[in-house]
Amino acid sequence: MNILVIGASGRVGQKLTEQLLDSGHTVTGTTRDKDTLFDNDNYTQLDLDLSASNKDIAAQITEDFDAVYFTAGSGGKDVLAVDLHGAVKTMQVAEVKGISRYIMLSAVYSLDTSKWDAPSVQALSDYYIAKHYADDFLIHRTNLDYTIVQPGSLTEDAPTHQIDINSDDAGSNTISDVAETLAGILTAENTYKQVFAMQNGKTPIEQAIGIV
Amino acid sequence: MNILVIGASGRVGQKLTEQLLDSGHTVTGTTRDKDTLFDNDNYTQLDLDLSASNKDIAAQITEDFDAVYFTAGSGGKDVLAVDLHGAVKTMQVAEVKGISRYIMLSAVYSLDTSKWDAPSVQALSDYYIAKHYADDFLIHRTNLDYTIVQPGSLTEDAPTHQIDINSDDAGSNTISDVAETLAGILTAENTYKQVFAMQNGKTPIEQAIGIV
Repeated sequence: MNILVIGASGRVGQKLTEQLLDSGHTVTGTTRDKDTLFDNDNYTQLDLDLSASNKDIAAQITEDFDAVYFTAGSGGKDVLAVDLHGAVKTMQVAEVKGISRYIMLSAVYSLDTSKWDAPSVQALSDYYIAKHYADDFLIHRTNLDYTIVQPGSLTEDAPTHQIDINSDDAGSNTISDVAETLAGILTAENTYKQVFAMQNGKTPIEQAIGIV
Repeated sequence: MNILVIGASGRVGQKLTEQLLDSGHTVTGTTRDKDTLFDNDNYTQLDLDLSASNKDIAAQITEDFDAVYFTAGSGGKDVLAVDLHGAVKTMQVAEVKGISRYIMLSAVYSLDTSKWDAPSVQALSDYYIAKHYADDFLIHRTNLDYTIVQPGSLTEDAPTHQIDINSDDAGSNTISDVAETLAGILTAENTYKQVFAMQNGKTPIEQAIGIV
């Protein structure tokens, strides 16, 4: 498949792009980095400015993509323009371009504001507000076949290839396992129009995806 | 009527509260200021923290209000927590409390991102993003009888009592005329579920409201 990864230089975006390329997909990765991230014939890089207008973003998305991943983030530096409005513009461009599959990397509790007194959320309150309204828009204001994936805190630990889904505990996640899960749901129709939380756990990822 | 003005210490909020009190309404004004803003038996003041949870905000709204005005703003200091998420929480609390009439002070072009290359918007881009998603939520994610009022730039000039509605020009507005317009639409059912831009103009305010 031909896949657009928005935010290919991010911690999750890099691992995800690697996995998608390893699986034989063709990937266009967007980043503000000038260096080419992957030396692979199936990889193309795009310098996409998420603060540009819908029209300018659409003009840069010239290929026929089968799916979009949004793994970009401003690292707290520009959450309104990137994590919220930038994300929404990519949803709108996907719809205009007829790309129906849209996978959003979000964060645990992004949609459940009743859990926002957790210290992990309080420490990132602006980020959480931005992700909240981006996720809310994706669900209620688009017709995309979205999946919203909500990991807890991210670690650089080795992959475990096992996760839990929708556990009550926010938990932590290895970045590799998050990337493997994102790659694994690409065409999993049971995950369309679904939101799920994930964390390091005990169920093999492929099996866990099946029960979302 | 018994009216809640959220942001009663703002430039528009103060003038609006004055006008509502002059018209014989009972007003509760929210502000973080400790000083009481109006010496009037029909005025009550509430120290409402918009960064609090829905539950805590709801607990402070103990009266039966007939309408809510949202004229609060962080002045660019905390647009995610105040202008966006704070505003949305007051919408949700209004719905829970059965207060159906909700009047939002917004800004010209808040919903029309195709106009955001205007220098006046570029200079306030974070503010505009916040207002955009707050207004979008009010329209699409609530069942409130909202009106969204979108003035251009605000001036301290003397009231003219005349405005234009939905002119192509962003224009400017005297704060007094904006307050008079907000007060004037309180029970104007033709403005329910409507969004309109306004600016200094040539039509008497009462007449202009009639043609929204």
